[in-house]
Amino acid sequence: MASEEPYQNPTNPEDQPQNEEGSAKKLSKKEAAKLERLRKRQEAAAAAVAANISSMAIDDTDPLAENYGDTPLDDLKSKEISGRKWTEVKALNEDLKDQVALIRGRVQAIRAVGKKMAFVVLRERGFTVQCILTVTPDVVSAQMVKFATSLSRESIVDIEGVITVPATTIKGATQQVEVQVKKIYCVNKAIPALPINIDDAARSEEEIENALKAGEQLVRVNQDTRLNFRVLDIRTPANQGIFRIQCQVENIFRQFLLSEGFVGIHTPKLIAGSSEGGSAVFKLDYKGQPACLAQSPQLHKQMAICGDFGRVFEIGPVFRAEDSFTHRHLCEFTGLDVEMEIKEHYSEVMDVVDRLFVTMFDSLNDTCQKELEAINEQYRFKPLKYLRKTLRLTFEEGIQMLREVGVEIDPLGDLNTESERKLGQLVLEKYDTEFYILHRYPLAVRPFYTMPCYDNPLYSNSFDVFIRGEEIISGAQRVHVPEYLLERAQACGIDVKTISTYIDSFRYGAPPHGGFGVGLERVVMLFCALNNIRKSSLFPRDPQRIAP
Amino acid sequence: MASEEPYQNPTNPEDQPQNEEGSAKKLSKKEAAKLERLRKRQEAAAAAVAANISSMAIDDTDPLAENYGDTPLDDLKSKEISGRKWTEVKALNEDLKDQVALIRGRVQAIRAVGKKMAFVVLRERGFTVQCILTVTPDVVSAQMVKFATSLSRESIVDIEGVITVPATTIKGATQQVEVQVKKIYCVNKAIPALPINIDDAARSEEEIENALKAGEQLVRVNQDTRLNFRVLDIRTPANQGIFRIQCQVENIFRQFLLSEGFVGIHTPKLIAGSSEGGSAVFKLDYKGQPACLAQSPQLHKQMAICGDFGRVFEIGPVFRAEDSFTHRHLCEFTGLDVEMEIKEHYSEVMDVVDRLFVTMFDSLNDTCQKELEAINEQYRFKPLKYLRKTLRLTFEEGIQMLREVGVEIDPLGDLNTESERKLGQLVLEKYDTEFYILHRYPLAVRPFYTMPCYDNPLYSNSFDVFIRGEEIISGAQRVHVPEYLLERAQACGIDVKTISTYIDSFRYGAPPHGGFGVGLERVVMLFCALNNIRKSSLFPRDPQRIAP
Repeated sequence: MASEEPYQNPTNPEDQPQNEEGSAKKLSKKEAAKLERLRKRQEAAAAAVAANISSMAIDDTDPLAENYGDTPLDDLKSKEISGRKWTEVKALNEDLKDQVALIRGRVQAIRAVGKKMAFVVLRERGFTVQCILTVTPDVVSAQMVKFATSLSRESIVDIEGVITVPATTIKGATQQVEVQVKKIYCVNKAIPALPINIDDAARSEEEIENALKAGEQLVRVNQDTRLNFRVLDIRTPANQGIFRIQCQVENIFRQFLLSEGFVGIHTPKLIAGSSEGGSAVFKLDYKGQPACLAQSPQLHKQMAICGDFGRVFEIGPVFRAEDSFTHRHLCEFTGLDVEMEIKEHYSEVMDVVDRLFVTMFDSLNDTCQKELEAINEQYRFKPLKYLRKTLRLTFEEGIQMLREVGVEIDPLGDLNTESERKLGQLVLEKYDTEFYILHRYPLAVRPFYTMPCYDNPLYSNSFDVFIRGEEIISGAQRVHVPEYLLERAQACGIDVKTISTYIDSFRYGAPPHGGFGVGLERVVMLFCALNNIRKSSLFPRDPQRIAP
Repeated sequence: MASEEPYQNPTNPEDQPQNEEGSAKKLSKKEAAKLERLRKRQEAAAAAVAANISSMAIDDTDPLAENYGDTPLDDLKSKEISGRKWTEVKALNEDLKDQVALIRGRVQAIRAVGKKMAFVVLRERGFTVQCILTVTPDVVSAQMVKFATSLSRESIVDIEGVITVPATTIKGATQQVEVQVKKIYCVNKAIPALPINIDDAARSEEEIENALKAGEQLVRVNQDTRLNFRVLDIRTPANQGIFRIQCQVENIFRQFLLSEGFVGIHTPKLIAGSSEGGSAVFKLDYKGQPACLAQSPQLHKQMAICGDFGRVFEIGPVFRAEDSFTHRHLCEFTGLDVEMEIKEHYSEVMDVVDRLFVTMFDSLNDTCQKELEAINEQYRFKPLKYLRKTLRLTFEEGIQMLREVGVEIDPLGDLNTESERKLGQLVLEKYDTEFYILHRYPLAVRPFYTMPCYDNPLYSNSFDVFIRGEEIISGAQRVHVPEYLLERAQACGIDVKTISTYIDSFRYGAPPHGGFGVGLERVVMLFCALNNIRKSSLFPRDPQRIAP
């Protein structure tokens, strides 16, 4: 709800390029040329690899040649169901000692020790294991070791080997066993000149700075490069964690609401007119009719309430054509929306928010420890502070707190980003929580369908919810009487013709109701204190980015 | 995957208007004029009701006036939290005998018996209860009975009353108790001239025809009228059931996949280029760049596999700008998509389909009995026949079965709708199942990213799945080698420049993988044997419909 200024984090070099429109545009030209050069290099490299593969695959001189090599493509076209048992890297542990395991993963690192030994670190979905090739009569030939050391990083390989347990801790891998390789086959080669090295992409800012102090310059992968090569970037442990947490946030959202009698619905994203008025909509031609992409499921979720579903939720994309170049705005994100009948008071909606999010935070802390650790390794953050019963302050109380520390603020205006952050600090100091609800916002700063307060028409039955000083949820009681809704829409300058089917929905008997909307990416970003929403969007869309 | 002809069900009058483009367009003009007239009538009626409300609300002559009337709007603006306990209509049962209950619902029906008694059937989320007003000194006045009988149908009312248990079965309501009304307040009035009567909308075709035989002409609400006034239409018990089942289908899909290690993801719907080639895309301007709406998450879900997520699923809207005027095509629907690494064979993907859908059908039959009964009341259908282990036939076997009964068919072409239906019949007769997998489709009829068979490049590692003779799922192993993918794309006439980021994703090492896509609305439609996909879409979008 707050108005937005471009956000700059002066301490984080990753954020610099994309925050100033000018430099971003310049960069984007340079970037394009750079990408073009890279593509050419990659194509040349790919051709070289392809040539190399065919020459390496056949080695008639080695009687052990069948223990290694490139798997022919025809064998990968569902040729047979062998019935062999595959073991996941994350399942490799001491219980499997001396057993033969068959694993598939990526070559994360290779190290040759002379010509008779090699170490290959294999990675599968973020878990890694150290595999060892040692020249052994009748099993491992020197050519096989050479084959292994010639593999390009990130290639997919199948390894068959015996599990052993080393006496000392293994530092370079997550699994505390080793695989004594008997067979190794390359399933699909990666190009040798990767645009991003996974080790570089997984490095923390802290590590880079500590190295710099020690006189070593480590590669820092900037945010735009990460996003350009997102398929590589999302392989880092932190990113594997972020998107598994995102999935879990959605799960808890669903399961909690289902347990409270909500029904999951899907409303159309293609709509006539704009969903909430305003100009920040993507327009398109729908079979000769003007149409646009829904900025939220607001109108249709309310119509579902008019249609007797009682309590509904929706998880789906929402589209905003705003030119917001901030760390927390996207042109497309995943909306978590709720709408419900209320009997008496909008606090019934805030009660749902309260219980839902406390349940969510508890569950994330309980069930996602590994993922949170992986994120914390790269992007350090402190666990979110929240109360068992969520703090609720009125907007007026918030204004008062700000005024007490000398912040000048319009009591009937909205909070800007800076005031929101300041209030977040004050609330943290006073109440020891980074999660709270601010309610009874001025009517003038809320959408037309917001119900005014019974006792003061300058205020409304609405609320915002904050995590770590940033707005994450907006909600309210809605106007459920058609004549009054029409009046409010007109007062807010809405062209009521464009929302006539919506207003008509209330003529057939509408119950009092309210609801709220949350951005999935924002929940993840703020729970993990990430500095940019692009980190919690798998393939982000902003005003300058529509690929990959 | 099959080519489509417009579908006509000659026995179902509901399907007539929208199947012939000509008549649909004509109707649409007539419909518009009709709607305009209706709107004017509604507005006049609303004004009359409003006037009436204010005159009725105050009745100084009745000392019991505070037991009934219209709740003032100010009281509905979250004025207070009374702490009163509300009971849901579906929870009203004999256990509550002699207790006072407070309920909120819609007036479904009103019947006056003289001036001293009235029956009001109250409905909440599909459940109904009979409420009785009887003139009683100090509790119910004749004016109160008059107030109740003057309520318009579908209005929202609050009733406080004592629960009684009648000696005989109650036919006109779902709950087998009655409410002896002590207080009744109207929360929000519906206009008296509703465009659809819920009783009419809830009537089965059978009932209409039986009445006709007995000489009575009942109102039949056609499909377009239902969709024009969808907010009323979705209040019928059948529709309440359909969308609760839809929600459950999605739940089972999610929960099953999560239990098997899949990660739920969200990929962008706004993309540069078209997701699978072809012209049936909605185009738009994205901040000065040409863009379109994703026809499926195909490319991005594969990129998530290249990004090490191992097994992913996505639930989200997909957009098709096709001019398909059939009973089973929509311009926007909810895609259920799956993509997963495979070790050896595309049968691993079919195994997931098999277990997932058998689990789903079992669960729907177990947990959604009430909903299925509600649907069956209006749209009669027989439970789906399916096997514990899903039948798998090769495409060649399917062709053979069709040829044996004299159907002429191209062995390397696709099946048309008619052949699919015929094959469905044959399979049902021979194997006693209405759910089966047909695999090894001709390569020529599958998308460019489909992996050809190892033993015959005219066929592919692909499959379709059928329910009741209609295609519901398409899946396949994908080409995971970039050079080969490029070759296949070019062979299929794709402009490879538009999908370069997709193809590049495979250059960084891609595991063998496969997946499938399902339409949520189709699953619901075919599980319940509904005759039109518009019945299983909350607010359907077809080439002629973008509202409500």
